[in-house]
Amino acid sequence: MFAEKMVELGSRRSTIREIFEFGKKRAAEVGAENVFDFSLGNPNVPAPQAVEDNILKLVTTEESAALHGYTSAQGDAGVRSRIAGSINRAHGTHFHADNLYMTVGAAASLCICFKALAEEGDEFITFAPYFPEYKVFAEGTGAKLLVAPADTDSFQIHFDEFEKLLGPKTKAVIVNSPNNPSGAVYSEDTILKLTELMKRKSEEYGHAIYLISDEPYREIVYGNVKVPYLTKYYENTFVCYSYSKSLSLPGERIGYVVVPDEMEDQKAAYAAVCGAGRVLGYVNAPSLFQRVVGECVGKTSDVTIYRRNRDLLYNALTEMGYTCVKPDGAFYLFPRSLEPDANAFCEKAKEFDILLVPGDDFGCPGHVRIAYCVQTEMIERSLDAFRKLSEQYQ
Amino acid sequence: MFAEKMVELGSRRSTIREIFEFGKKRAAEVGAENVFDFSLGNPNVPAPQAVEDNILKLVTTEESAALHGYTSAQGDAGVRSRIAGSINRAHGTHFHADNLYMTVGAAASLCICFKALAEEGDEFITFAPYFPEYKVFAEGTGAKLLVAPADTDSFQIHFDEFEKLLGPKTKAVIVNSPNNPSGAVYSEDTILKLTELMKRKSEEYGHAIYLISDEPYREIVYGNVKVPYLTKYYENTFVCYSYSKSLSLPGERIGYVVVPDEMEDQKAAYAAVCGAGRVLGYVNAPSLFQRVVGECVGKTSDVTIYRRNRDLLYNALTEMGYTCVKPDGAFYLFPRSLEPDANAFCEKAKEFDILLVPGDDFGCPGHVRIAYCVQTEMIERSLDAFRKLSEQYQ
Repeated sequence: MFAEKMVELGSRRSTIREIFEFGKKRAAEVGAENVFDFSLGNPNVPAPQAVEDNILKLVTTEESAALHGYTSAQGDAGVRSRIAGSINRAHGTHFHADNLYMTVGAAASLCICFKALAEEGDEFITFAPYFPEYKVFAEGTGAKLLVAPADTDSFQIHFDEFEKLLGPKTKAVIVNSPNNPSGAVYSEDTILKLTELMKRKSEEYGHAIYLISDEPYREIVYGNVKVPYLTKYYENTFVCYSYSKSLSLPGERIGYVVVPDEMEDQKAAYAAVCGAGRVLGYVNAPSLFQRVVGECVGKTSDVTIYRRNRDLLYNALTEMGYTCVKPDGAFYLFPRSLEPDANAFCEKAKEFDILLVPGDDFGCPGHVRIAYCVQTEMIERSLDAFRKLSEQYQ
Repeated sequence: MFAEKMVELGSRRSTIREIFEFGKKRAAEVGAENVFDFSLGNPNVPAPQAVEDNILKLVTTEESAALHGYTSAQGDAGVRSRIAGSINRAHGTHFHADNLYMTVGAAASLCICFKALAEEGDEFITFAPYFPEYKVFAEGTGAKLLVAPADTDSFQIHFDEFEKLLGPKTKAVIVNSPNNPSGAVYSEDTILKLTELMKRKSEEYGHAIYLISDEPYREIVYGNVKVPYLTKYYENTFVCYSYSKSLSLPGERIGYVVVPDEMEDQKAAYAAVCGAGRVLGYVNAPSLFQRVVGECVGKTSDVTIYRRNRDLLYNALTEMGYTCVKPDGAFYLFPRSLEPDANAFCEKAKEFDILLVPGDDFGCPGHVRIAYCVQTEMIERSLDAFRKLSEQYQ
C-alpha cells in the first residue's frame, strides 16, 4: 500500500530522537534541572541581534506581496550576490550570484547535490564518524553510501581505508569539517592528501569524482584553527552551507550550495542542481529568511559561549579520566566510552541522568557524542554526575 | 557525470518562466505600464495584517533559540492542534494534531505524499487541465502520471476518459479544486461520482486507491460556491494544503498534509509521510512561519480583490467574443484561444504585449491561462489590447 521503505524510515525514530524523548520524560519525573541532556545539536545561543533587527525592518518597510512572494528558484539574485561577495572577502574566491543556489537548509543542500549527481549504481563515500542522515539521503537518490572507518587517534582521515573504497563507481566523496560528532577540523595537510588522491583516481577512472563539503559548522572553530575553503583545493567541489549553526536558525531552513566556475562543465552542474531542487519540490528557499541572511552576511551568533563550554567540559572530563580528542570546532565532544560497548555505557549514563548518543550511530563504536550547545550552567551541574559515572568503571 | 534527467529538468525552463522573463525584457523596452503580464500565479494581494502583527509579536517576545530552533519533524504540536481545530470548525471534521504533518509548502506536500505512496510500476492519475509540475514530482518518485483529457464544457471530470485509465496499477488520483488553470470548482455531484467510482475500483482491484487533494485555492471561491472537504467523502484521502494563496505567502513555503484517522492503516500512512519528508531532506517546515500560520488560523488575504478582477476580466472578454467557462474559484481564467493552436495565439498576444500561458502546458490545448492575481488597474489598461487581439481574428 504505502512505500515500505518510507513507512520504515518514518517509524524507526532516530536514536537521538529516542534519547531526547526519554529526557523529556525524566525531566517531568525528577525536574528539568536534574537531567543533563547532551543529546541534541540544537544551538542554545540566540541568533545575533541583526537577525531580529532585519526581520523587523523588512516586515515593516517592504511590500508584503514582494517580501513573501516567490523568488527565482535559485534564490534572490541580490541575496546570492551579497553572499558571494562575503565568501570572496573571507576566502579570496571569485564567486558571483550564479555560483550560488539558495536552499531550504543543509539537508536540502545535501539532498540536492546527491540527486544532481546520483545515477543507478553510483557510490558515495564518507568518513566515520559521520552524520547518519547521509545514508538516508544518499539511498533516497538511489546511490549507495560507503563509509571509511574512523581514524580514532585524531579524527582526520584514515587514507588507507579510504583508498580501499575508492573505485570506478565512486561518484562523490562527502566531507564534514568541522565535524559532527567529533568536533575535528581537517587540517590543510589532510585536505591536500585527500584532494591529491581524488585527482589521481579521477584520472585513473577517466571521470570526475566530486567532493561535497558539508560545512554548517565552518564559523564555529576555536583559537587560530583554519578551515580550508575546498573549492581552492579541488575544482569539482560542491559546497553545502547552512545558517542553522552560524546564525542559530536551524528551524528556519536556510542555506545554499556553491557550484564554482572551476567545476568541469559548470553550466550543466548548476542546471543539475536546479533540476534536483525542482524534482524534490523545493520551489525556492524561504523568502523572508533569504533576505535576512543576505543582510547578515559576515555575522554569527556569539560562538565564544561554545568555546567556554568546550573548555569547561573537556578539561573536567579528561581530568576525571575520560579519553577525548580535543575538538577544534563544532559543539561536540566525542570521548571514548568507558566500556567497549557505547550503547551499554549510554544506558549506564542514563542512571545518572546524563543523556549521550552512542557513537555506533555515527559509524564509530566505542565513543559517545556529547552536544555541548547547552547552558554553561547545566554543564557545571552535570560534572558531579559525570564523575559518579566514571567511578562506576574504576 | 551529472544525473542526465536533473540537467534536463534544470536546463529546460518552464514555459511560464520563459514568458515571465520575456515580460521583464519587454518592460525594460516599452515601460512596465505597457506590458500586460498575466503569466504568473504570484498573489498580488498583501498578506493579512495579522501576519505582520504576529511576526513582530513572536520575534520581539519569544526566546530566539526556541523560536528559530528545530521543531519536531511533523511540526510544532501546538500549531498542528490549532490548525486541526480550525479545519474541524470549518468542515465538521474530527482531526487532531497527529492527523497533520507541517510541510515546506504545496510542492513539498505533494512530493511527500507521492513519495509515501509510490512503488515501482505505480500509476497516478490526474485530470486535465493540471499543474504541470505534477508530472515532474510523480516521475521523481518513480511513479508514472496518467492524465485524463479535459471536460472542456465545464472543467468538471470526464468520467468515461477517467475510467479508461483506472487500472490495477493505479495507486492514487490527484485532484485540484479550485483548479489551476481553469478556476473550476468540483461540485459535490462530481465528488460523489468520483469517490463512488474509486471505491468500486478499489474493491475490484483489491487494494486502496488513494485520493490526493491539492487545495491551495480552497478559500479563494466566489459567491456561494462550496468546496467539499474530501475526507468526508472518501476515507483514503490525503489533503495537501498550502498557505501560499490564502495568506499570500508563496515564497515562505508553508503548508501541511492531512492524514485522516479514517484512512486504512492510518499509523502506517502517517509514518510513510514522515519517512518521505525525512528522505527528501525537509527536516521541518520553517519554524517562524509554522507559528505565524498557527496564529492566523481562519484568516485570509482580502480575496474580494480577486473576485473584482474576475468579474471585470470575464465580463469584458466574453463581451469581446472570447469563450470562457466562468470560474468559481482560484485566480485564473482559461478561455479558448481564438485560433486552434494556443501557442500561436499566445505569440500573437505578445504582439499586443499581453502575456498568457498556452493550455498545452496544462494538458489542455486550444486554451490559454490568464492569471488575474494582478493589479485591477492593469486589467483595465489591458482591455484595449485584448480587444485589438480579438479583432485580429474577425
